[in-house]
Amino acid sequence: MRIAEGVEWAAHACAVLASLPAGQALNAAALASFHELPPAYMAKHLQALSKAGVVVAVRGAQGGYALARPASQITLWDVQAAISGSEPSFRCQDIRRKGPCAGHYPSGAPCPIACAFAAAEQAYRDHLKSVPLSELVRQVAAGMGPAGRDAFRSWAGLRHTSAISS
Amino acid sequence: MRIAEGVEWAAHACAVLASLPAGQALNAAALASFHELPPAYMAKHLQALSKAGVVVAVRGAQGGYALARPASQITLWDVQAAISGSEPSFRCQDIRRKGPCAGHYPSGAPCPIACAFAAAEQAYRDHLKSVPLSELVRQVAAGMGPAGRDAFRSWAGLRHTSAISS
Repeated sequence: MRIAEGVEWAAHACAVLASLPAGQALNAAALASFHELPPAYMAKHLQALSKAGVVVAVRGAQGGYALARPASQITLWDVQAAISGSEPSFRCQDIRRKGPCAGHYPSGAPCPIACAFAAAEQAYRDHLKSVPLSELVRQVAAGMGPAGRDAFRSWAGLRHTSAISS
Repeated sequence: MRIAEGVEWAAHACAVLASLPAGQALNAAALASFHELPPAYMAKHLQALSKAGVVVAVRGAQGGYALARPASQITLWDVQAAISGSEPSFRCQDIRRKGPCAGHYPSGAPCPIACAFAAAEQAYRDHLKSVPLSELVRQVAAGMGPAGRDAFRSWAGLRHTSAISS
C-alpha cells in the first residue's frame, strides 16, 4: 500500500496557495519551481485538483490557480481524494461465497473482514479530514520563522498580508 | 492506494485456521480450495505469513499450517503487515527542502504534511490492531448459523470442538 508521490506534491502546492492572500493565483510553473518539481507533472496534478473542486483556474496575466474555498475548508483528505480517488483501498472480492460454505453466509450482509478494513480506512480518512490546509500553513509558517516567511513573501511577490504574515 | 488482494486471501486463510482446534493444521491446497483460490498464490501468502510469525509450518501427514499463537493474539494488522509489509504508505520526500525556502525549515523536524499522513496511517493501523482473528471468527460463525458451521466442520474433518462450535 503506497500513496502516490503526487499526493505529496499536491499537498505542498495547496499549502503554498493557502499561504497567499485571498484571490491571488500562482501558475503551475511557479508552483513547480517552489519545490523544484517537474512542471508537467505539477500541471497534471493541478488539473486533477481543479477537477475535484479543490482549486480553481484564474484567467489573466496574473492567472494560474487559487484555492476554490478558504483554506480552513479544504482538508488533506480533499487533496488525496483529488489525486488518488476515493475508492476503498480494500476491495472485497467476497471470496467467502465460493467453496464448501459458499451458501451459508447471510445474503446482503458484508463480510466481517471487509467491514474491519472499511472501518480502519474510515479512521484514516477521518484523521485527514480533521487537518485543514489552514492548520498546516500555521505549522509550516511557525517552523520557518520570520526569515523563512520573508523568503516566501519575496518569492511570491507578496506585498499584502498573507496567511504566513509575521 | 490499494491493498493487495493477497491481504484478503491471507485474512480469510487465517480466519479458517482460527476456526480449527488448537494445533490442527491445514495445508496450502486445502486453504486455497476453501475459497477456490489458486493454490500457488495461497502457498506464497502462507510462506509470507510464516516468515512474519503469524503461522507456523507443521510437519507430518496431517501437516500444513497452523496459527503461531492464539487467535486472540493475532490481529488483522499482523496479516496485512505480513503480506504487504509495514512501510509507511506516505513516503515523505521532504520536497520542502528544495527551492527558495529550502534553508528555512527547522533541521530534524519532520514536515507537518508528513506528520499528518503518519498520524492518519497510525489511526488505520490502530483500528486493524484492535481486531483479533478470534473476533472475526466469532462474527463469521454467528453469521453462518448452525448449518454453515456444520458444513465447515464437515469440510475440515473436525470431530473436536472448534472455535466455530455451535
